[in-house]
Amino acid sequence: MAKDLSISVLLDFYGDMLTEKQREVVDYYYNEDLSLAEIAEHCGITRQGVRDSIKRAESQLYECEEKLGLMARMGSIQDAASEILETAADLQKEASALPYCGKVLEKVQRIIDLATALNI
Amino acid sequence: MAKDLSISVLLDFYGDMLTEKQREVVDYYYNEDLSLAEIAEHCGITRQGVRDSIKRAESQLYECEEKLGLMARMGSIQDAASEILETAADLQKEASALPYCGKVLEKVQRIIDLATALNI
Repeated sequence: MAKDLSISVLLDFYGDMLTEKQREVVDYYYNEDLSLAEIAEHCGITRQGVRDSIKRAESQLYECEEKLGLMARMGSIQDAASEILETAADLQKEASALPYCGKVLEKVQRIIDLATALNI
Repeated sequence: MAKDLSISVLLDFYGDMLTEKQREVVDYYYNEDLSLAEIAEHCGITRQGVRDSIKRAESQLYECEEKLGLMARMGSIQDAASEILETAADLQKEASALPYCGKVLEKVQRIIDLATALNI
């Protein structure tokens, strides 16, 4: 069974939409990197039961993303925030070479702080 | 039955998590402003059926927000984007008073464009 690495990210966004049991199994598999056999032993279900549970949870996570697009939205927001940060850093360099730049630099710093908070 | 105005916003975010029938009923009620009686007639169900369907859909929308917090997240992102925009507009004024400000102003404009795209 190939591991799909975007599942960890989807789990961060949509984990609360799964049942507690499903979340636990998927977390062991994707985040803790346990084998199907180890999870089976740990949870007291069969290896096939673990596999089915993971497959069902994966489908649900993909379905959530298809309906809500939270991962895609957050991705675009982070791209924009990164570009604001980069541009503001360039701006900081440009502006500090100018005379009387104190107030300008203060505002650039405020933008950097706001974009940093967005970029987490 | 009091109308809860945040439902329209929740419907924008989570409408796809409802069944088509639920979405239709809630849309008539909250976005088209039809009465329960009008919706009942239109959908061929009882007035009580419409009321129940709306109540169930409202609970589901609130549950989605509780689990995923998309409305709250987007609210904070828009607040940050608005503040970036305001600060960049001030920056534009400050910087344009400085000599040799051409490159600085170009970068401020880029930040304004990026923050505007975030603020929709």
